[in-house]
Amino acid sequence: MMLEENSKISSIPWQDRPKGSNEIMWRYSNNPIIKRNAIPSSNSIFNSAVIRFKGGYAGIFRCDNKSVQMNIHAGFSKDGIHWNIEHEPIVMEEGNTTMIASDYKYDPRIVLIEDKYWITWCNGYHGPTIGIAYTYDFEKFYQCENAFLPFNRNGVLFPKKINGKYAMLSRPSDNGHTPFGDIYISYSPDMKYWGEHRSVMKITKFEDSAWQCTKIGAGPAPILTDEGWLLFYHGVINTCNGFRYSMGAAILDENDPSIVKYRSQPYLMAPTEIYEQVGDVPNVLFPCGILHDIAQDKVALYYGGADTVVGVAFGHISEIIEFVKNNSL
Amino acid sequence: MMLEENSKISSIPWQDRPKGSNEIMWRYSNNPIIKRNAIPSSNSIFNSAVIRFKGGYAGIFRCDNKSVQMNIHAGFSKDGIHWNIEHEPIVMEEGNTTMIASDYKYDPRIVLIEDKYWITWCNGYHGPTIGIAYTYDFEKFYQCENAFLPFNRNGVLFPKKINGKYAMLSRPSDNGHTPFGDIYISYSPDMKYWGEHRSVMKITKFEDSAWQCTKIGAGPAPILTDEGWLLFYHGVINTCNGFRYSMGAAILDENDPSIVKYRSQPYLMAPTEIYEQVGDVPNVLFPCGILHDIAQDKVALYYGGADTVVGVAFGHISEIIEFVKNNSL
Amino acid sequence: MMLEENSKISSIPWQDRPKGSNEIMWRYSNNPIIKRNAIPSSNSIFNSAVIRFKGGYAGIFRCDNKSVQMNIHAGFSKDGIHWNIEHEPIVMEEGNTTMIASDYKYDPRIVLIEDKYWITWCNGYHGPTIGIAYTYDFEKFYQCENAFLPFNRNGVLFPKKINGKYAMLSRPSDNGHTPFGDIYISYSPDMKYWGEHRSVMKITKFEDSAWQCTKIGAGPAPILTDEGWLLFYHGVINTCNGFRYSMGAAILDENDPSIVKYRSQPYLMAPTEIYEQVGDVPNVLFPCGILHDIAQDKVALYYGGADTVVGVAFGHISEIIEFVKNNSL
Amino acid sequence: MMLEENSKISSIPWQDRPKGSNEIMWRYSNNPIIKRNAIPSSNSIFNSAVIRFKGGYAGIFRCDNKSVQMNIHAGFSKDGIHWNIEHEPIVMEEGNTTMIASDYKYDPRIVLIEDKYWITWCNGYHGPTIGIAYTYDFEKFYQCENAFLPFNRNGVLFPKKINGKYAMLSRPSDNGHTPFGDIYISYSPDMKYWGEHRSVMKITKFEDSAWQCTKIGAGPAPILTDEGWLLFYHGVINTCNGFRYSMGAAILDENDPSIVKYRSQPYLMAPTEIYEQVGDVPNVLFPCGILHDIAQDKVALYYGGADTVVGVAFGHISEIIEFVKNNSL
Amino acid sequence: MMLEENSKISSIPWQDRPKGSNEIMWRYSNNPIIKRNAIPSSNSIFNSAVIRFKGGYAGIFRCDNKSVQMNIHAGFSKDGIHWNIEHEPIVMEEGNTTMIASDYKYDPRIVLIEDKYWITWCNGYHGPTIGIAYTYDFEKFYQCENAFLPFNRNGVLFPKKINGKYAMLSRPSDNGHTPFGDIYISYSPDMKYWGEHRSVMKITKFEDSAWQCTKIGAGPAPILTDEGWLLFYHGVINTCNGFRYSMGAAILDENDPSIVKYRSQPYLMAPTEIYEQVGDVPNVLFPCGILHDIAQDKVALYYGGADTVVGVAFGHISEIIEFVKNNSL
Amino acid sequence: MMLEENSKISSIPWQDRPKGSNEIMWRYSNNPIIKRNAIPSSNSIFNSAVIRFKGGYAGIFRCDNKSVQMNIHAGFSKDGIHWNIEHEPIVMEEGNTTMIASDYKYDPRIVLIEDKYWITWCNGYHGPTIGIAYTYDFEKFYQCENAFLPFNRNGVLFPKKINGKYAMLSRPSDNGHTPFGDIYISYSPDMKYWGEHRSVMKITKFEDSAWQCTKIGAGPAPILTDEGWLLFYHGVINTCNGFRYSMGAAILDENDPSIVKYRSQPYLMAPTEIYEQVGDVPNVLFPCGILHDIAQDKVALYYGGADTVVGVAFGHISEIIEFVKNNSL
Repeated sequence: MMLEENSKISSIPWQDRPKGSNEIMWRYSNNPIIKRNAIPSSNSIFNSAVIRFKGGYAGIFRCDNKSVQMNIHAGFSKDGIHWNIEHEPIVMEEGNTTMIASDYKYDPRIVLIEDKYWITWCNGYHGPTIGIAYTYDFEKFYQCENAFLPFNRNGVLFPKKINGKYAMLSRPSDNGHTPFGDIYISYSPDMKYWGEHRSVMKITKFEDSAWQCTKIGAGPAPILTDEGWLLFYHGVINTCNGFRYSMGAAILDENDPSIVKYRSQPYLMAPTEIYEQVGDVPNVLFPCGILHDIAQDKVALYYGGADTVVGVAFGHISEIIEFVKNNSL
Repeated sequence: MMLEENSKISSIPWQDRPKGSNEIMWRYSNNPIIKRNAIPSSNSIFNSAVIRFKGGYAGIFRCDNKSVQMNIHAGFSKDGIHWNIEHEPIVMEEGNTTMIASDYKYDPRIVLIEDKYWITWCNGYHGPTIGIAYTYDFEKFYQCENAFLPFNRNGVLFPKKINGKYAMLSRPSDNGHTPFGDIYISYSPDMKYWGEHRSVMKITKFEDSAWQCTKIGAGPAPILTDEGWLLFYHGVINTCNGFRYSMGAAILDENDPSIVKYRSQPYLMAPTEIYEQVGDVPNVLFPCGILHDIAQDKVALYYGGADTVVGVAFGHISEIIEFVKNNSL
Repeated sequence: MMLEENSKISSIPWQDRPKGSNEIMWRYSNNPIIKRNAIPSSNSIFNSAVIRFKGGYAGIFRCDNKSVQMNIHAGFSKDGIHWNIEHEPIVMEEGNTTMIASDYKYDPRIVLIEDKYWITWCNGYHGPTIGIAYTYDFEKFYQCENAFLPFNRNGVLFPKKINGKYAMLSRPSDNGHTPFGDIYISYSPDMKYWGEHRSVMKITKFEDSAWQCTKIGAGPAPILTDEGWLLFYHGVINTCNGFRYSMGAAILDENDPSIVKYRSQPYLMAPTEIYEQVGDVPNVLFPCGILHDIAQDKVALYYGGADTVVGVAFGHISEIIEFVKNNSL
Repeated sequence: MMLEENSKISSIPWQDRPKGSNEIMWRYSNNPIIKRNAIPSSNSIFNSAVIRFKGGYAGIFRCDNKSVQMNIHAGFSKDGIHWNIEHEPIVMEEGNTTMIASDYKYDPRIVLIEDKYWITWCNGYHGPTIGIAYTYDFEKFYQCENAFLPFNRNGVLFPKKINGKYAMLSRPSDNGHTPFGDIYISYSPDMKYWGEHRSVMKITKFEDSAWQCTKIGAGPAPILTDEGWLLFYHGVINTCNGFRYSMGAAILDENDPSIVKYRSQPYLMAPTEIYEQVGDVPNVLFPCGILHDIAQDKVALYYGGADTVVGVAFGHISEIIEFVKNNSL
Repeated sequence: MMLEENSKISSIPWQDRPKGSNEIMWRYSNNPIIKRNAIPSSNSIFNSAVIRFKGGYAGIFRCDNKSVQMNIHAGFSKDGIHWNIEHEPIVMEEGNTTMIASDYKYDPRIVLIEDKYWITWCNGYHGPTIGIAYTYDFEKFYQCENAFLPFNRNGVLFPKKINGKYAMLSRPSDNGHTPFGDIYISYSPDMKYWGEHRSVMKITKFEDSAWQCTKIGAGPAPILTDEGWLLFYHGVINTCNGFRYSMGAAILDENDPSIVKYRSQPYLMAPTEIYEQVGDVPNVLFPCGILHDIAQDKVALYYGGADTVVGVAFGHISEIIEFVKNNSL
Repeated sequence: MMLEENSKISSIPWQDRPKGSNEIMWRYSNNPIIKRNAIPSSNSIFNSAVIRFKGGYAGIFRCDNKSVQMNIHAGFSKDGIHWNIEHEPIVMEEGNTTMIASDYKYDPRIVLIEDKYWITWCNGYHGPTIGIAYTYDFEKFYQCENAFLPFNRNGVLFPKKINGKYAMLSRPSDNGHTPFGDIYISYSPDMKYWGEHRSVMKITKFEDSAWQCTKIGAGPAPILTDEGWLLFYHGVINTCNGFRYSMGAAILDENDPSIVKYRSQPYLMAPTEIYEQVGDVPNVLFPCGILHDIAQDKVALYYGGADTVVGVAFGHISEIIEFVKNNSL
């Protein structure tokens, strides 16, 4: 199956909403776009990040190998759908620190701030914490100080400085399959020292919005809109047969993102397709990457399915914002 | 696919046993009859109850909306297979109490006693307990006192008074994914005060009947037969990957239903179809509604599949009773 | 050591507040009044209830024997301090039901309503629930229906009917060392069927009043005062080395006791004496019995120490009420 | 689909590696070869063992019946693919002990040592331990002393004596869904008394090889090769949605199998097919039986899929050994 | 305080029953006989074993050092009350195996069988299991094969062969603070290979004898009497503030000790003294050593108090047997 | 009992080592120096910090009030033994941030860096994290940004900058009775932003030093010696009856304190006195404050006993260092 004509003139991958659908966001008809064995060593490829790069796209992909070691690989694409992923994981060089070792790397995000592409990920340093690196070309990567003490996951940078400082969302956790999790924001003058930690969003009450009542975590980098920062995030419910990951969205204040202006009570997407329901970890839809075009009012959102594959979904920014505002907690 | 000719003259939905099958109960060939998105707001529709009503059928449906708020909706059908479900949840009016608030409602059952259709469900009042309401027309519903203190689930009324009192089966539980659960009976002179609590059925030993060794709970309302009350119930095994819900049946004494005359050691049905194995909660087959015709020796049993959809299964009452008697624990 | 002169003219056991003390409630100087081996068979005697009887006092004592079987024994005293406890547990006769078996009995309470002394306790019927019996003479006891389905503990009757019905506080629990617990009220027209269940008091937030942040339960029978029902209750904090039980008080509305008018943020008493800190279960101070004299403005409160012995504490009702009102959550 | 021509002249079932595949081991194209309802009473058939017998093959099959009672059944096949499984479980006679009762039997293995076919399995004797029996003809079976005290699983005999003694691998466990597990070896002079227990292989660090970081257990009987004993084993990772069972291989020293010469860091096979991912226990690939032909350099490995069905995979012994040596931890 | 006159002519340490006491077993008046810091390196000394040796007594003492490393030390005494304990732990030499390493050693027992003093203990070999050694002189010790695979504790040898084989009681456990535990028996022809494992005693139902409802384990070596083997054992109840260890006794059949002829429903001793209630692990009374004199009808039982010190208790064998028979479960 | 003569000329509180003692550190003979009810509102006073101030001493005291709300109070003393503690908790003013709210405050530490007394504590901000404040006079306190995201405890500043930056030890934790915990170091240029997080010390293996095998945390501020930083820390073992807290010491590299030069395998002090073994949390000895005099070779260490009272212990710095070096892990 091919991308629709419409997408050929789009700055981002695109398919129109299927006829008859009233979904705010809809899946790419040929999902999953990246299968578990897309490179020879991979057990699974999922929870990955993408960004515009040199007229096409670059990405950072979580590839678990067949030893189920978790690592991040660079990849490139012309259309954002068909990807060439490096067979070897990224090898880091020293950034702002001598410490570049890590036990594992997973769930990367990307932003471009000024001249650097910044990558964050869950970095194994005596437990999970937030690793940071930058690159100019997706070939050489410079690893910086971890943002926080363990235990932390889902560290997501804002794509520009706020009040002159770098800003990062994250979710403090524990060292296992954390049964709790809220979103906080922290600031840094220099990408080395972090402080001004503030609570942003907490889990909901079961009776208000059960899909996000166990833990929540930021998805891809927030998008700046007229309403504020549009943040896609995952929410988790603990069913009697395990965690189920769905996706919602919130709108944060532009200048003080610890202020949540709106937050979706219903989810935007939940695992309902077989490649989201069946895989290494069933019932996971995990938003991790995004491309957007404000002018064309479009997003292409990349998400992991069942901790096994990568899928894409599309939506109109204005509609998503309208939905969040009209269905806010 | 259509219902068989045979069912058109049946008082309940019906398909004959598939050729070559030796199953005591068999699935409708076009399951699931209700899909997860059958109404615009729904995340899933499952664990629902039905009853004959005005020449057709009425039902009370558990519809979790896309905020994953659990609620019950009325619905109507001419053939018991194709249903029109109200898009809005039931709004209760005062029954025998001023208290009509509840945090959530799920897993309804229905019986007709004298002139009222009585509905019971798991009602969120400082935790799960048993909510009670009645209706004459499935349009106006009158909420009564909760039957019990929390924590309780699977409250199921008998369809007639026993020794002059209302009788209810239920399963005391805790506030989470309860890892235990037995069936008790309680009586009430007036649907307001309950007492005379007795143990009815307990979980089995692992080596005797593992599918029901973790917890059990009453399914749809019991059916009065010559042998006593025919009770379909669910049983749960705790596998290393979560709970698996199957269905068995028991026969309770007509006048003292705390006496279990027979109880099936094997299950009657277990989750083996993809819509029972894959969904929001995998491997759940949860009996919750039933239509029966004693004269025609038939039941149509409605069950939730994977906490996501509704399926139907059929069987001959006499064969089911025979099976339970011949395979009794 | 002897009771103070003052107590000899008191209708209840009494010692004046020690000089220099500013405690609202103070311990009897010769605590514990009942030691663990007060009868030949006992491993421990604690969590017991007392009441005025025939010019002296009668009591129902929790005596765990040396098989650590839990049972209740009758006892009698002239001064409320020195007790003769029956060596054999109470043998029940049929009250309003044929069911009089129970696996164990513990933590009794007593009230006098009209002509009967009503006793409630934690009764082992397929798990803990609330047993009920009455006696006229503390010699013959008539066991009635259990009030509730399991699992429940700390069932405490009000000493008179409220709006024409019997009223009982209780704490729904689970079958083990329950890590949660709030106080509810239920009503009965006849001591057989119970309903109209309402939430009364819930645990506090850790930062507001940590001693009662894990679970709470009613203590002895409430006392009717001009301000409403004075209820002593226990509160539990889960320390890293186990549960610690302390005691507070609340004032409930006279006609609708589900309305909490005042509730003590600080505890009134906590385990600080060696016989409360060391024993079969360390750090337990469990209020279970009470004698009061409204005219003399006095209470003598009986409590279990470390699940091993019985202690007594004294206080002035007016001061306790003042304390609760001035230190209310 | 049929077995390839190639297999007709093979001494074991065989299909050549699919064109274009670079897998070290590949699945039979018509998997699963045994479905859950292959005999009338079965809920599922999986985790079973096979061996050459009288020009064809015999097998011992784990058949859970519809009461989910676990038992072992004999079966026979001409081609190793199509099996006739006895409808009734094996009835044991006395071997070297009078004790032949057991609460359940599951996960059998077979070896031929001298003149006897020895069968081991997880035997329910006050919890799981290792049962032992022998047969000459797969018709009469003689049950011997359990090898160990409970709790133990995955007892696997070596197919010949080592230093004059019987040798058995096993995994000490607990009585539930054991969250830990390493492989040990024990010796016996007589199949009755066991000792000389030594640690063989332990779980890996999460960052080294996460698929085997929670527990491991021996699969089918080891195969003696020029490099030593080739042992297939299962490894488990504890995901947030439950255990996932994959398969690796190790090479143990011929004369002292407690010495691990090589051990695969990557898995050889993991649950990626729908019949391995969906079933009674999702995401389980459990190696339990094997046929091999050293001369032809082939193995046919039998494994349980999702605790529901039996599948087969093929490989060349030399390639597997090469893979393990080149990818050793 | 001194030993009573009576003991000077006794072959074992002795004090007569205190006047007025009706206890079946009574404590030495100068307990604890060994304090926590009895040797310079010790954090605590407890759970130790003793035996007659060369006109006096030898003992094996569990001494946890100030790194809280657990080890066993030899000790000697003339009167069984005052002990000289070696400052250095026992260094083992090779017995019937080359394997003499262990991570830790604790809770020793001693028996004399023919010409050897056999010592068993909880031995750290990839988790706790049963270590075995023998000595002729309490100076040189010869370590043999561990009896079992991990995980096991409380391995206790019978002081003579039964039907020509060594016999050992033990309690299979897990690797932590095991919440379960029953007593099994195993046999060995040679102290190297063990088999014929049989269940002996299980925990009791809570309502029957709660002090032994969580786990039980053999205490010192059984004593052969006319009634059979007199076995002292510990029983554990899991209170809301942790485990409480008490002591009971059972009488096992002389020739087949898996047959329990009598077993005490009440405990014989429970932690009621401050040195049993307060210490490194509160509320522990752990019987581990014994001296007896059949002719004089006496035992001196050595037990650990609060995992910190050693105490002694005395009793008449005939009275203990009578008590067990009259109070048998 | 009085302080020894010797202490009157000491710059810190002091008592000589008791005659006959060979303890490296010894308790003050009149411990506890602060009792649980030292101020009218207190339930308990413990885990507190002290420092030289204006010719005497100032302290920050953890006072849990009778609502068991945790807060910190200032206090003053002339001799370091007798303290006047403010009856009201410290009220913070704005330091380097507008955020000065906190749900609770506990376990304070103090250092003097240049002109400011810096106080750190466990601060309740959506869970425990590390609060920071400074004071010049112990009357006005200025609260700064929390150092880290939750969840963290035991934040301890070094008493001077290291390589030009503030340095803090801390222990990442979870939100409950954390069952794990290692010590990390972090740096800040400005007491507002923190980074350069490095692992310092981890828990030990059970068989190496069990008293510190569950979690460890920094005690009072490190003391700079010729050997490096002398750090007292607590270690925890998880017994079957809860956590037991003891104290050891380590020596960290002066310029890179993430380098542990020596670390005590044995503890220096463990809970062996009744006021350490019995109280709100039994068996806790928690070092939190220190006074030292390098010239006189003395320390006076303040520690919490049983989470209830404050005790003091003394030692010679040179001896402690020697002990740590000679008994290093």
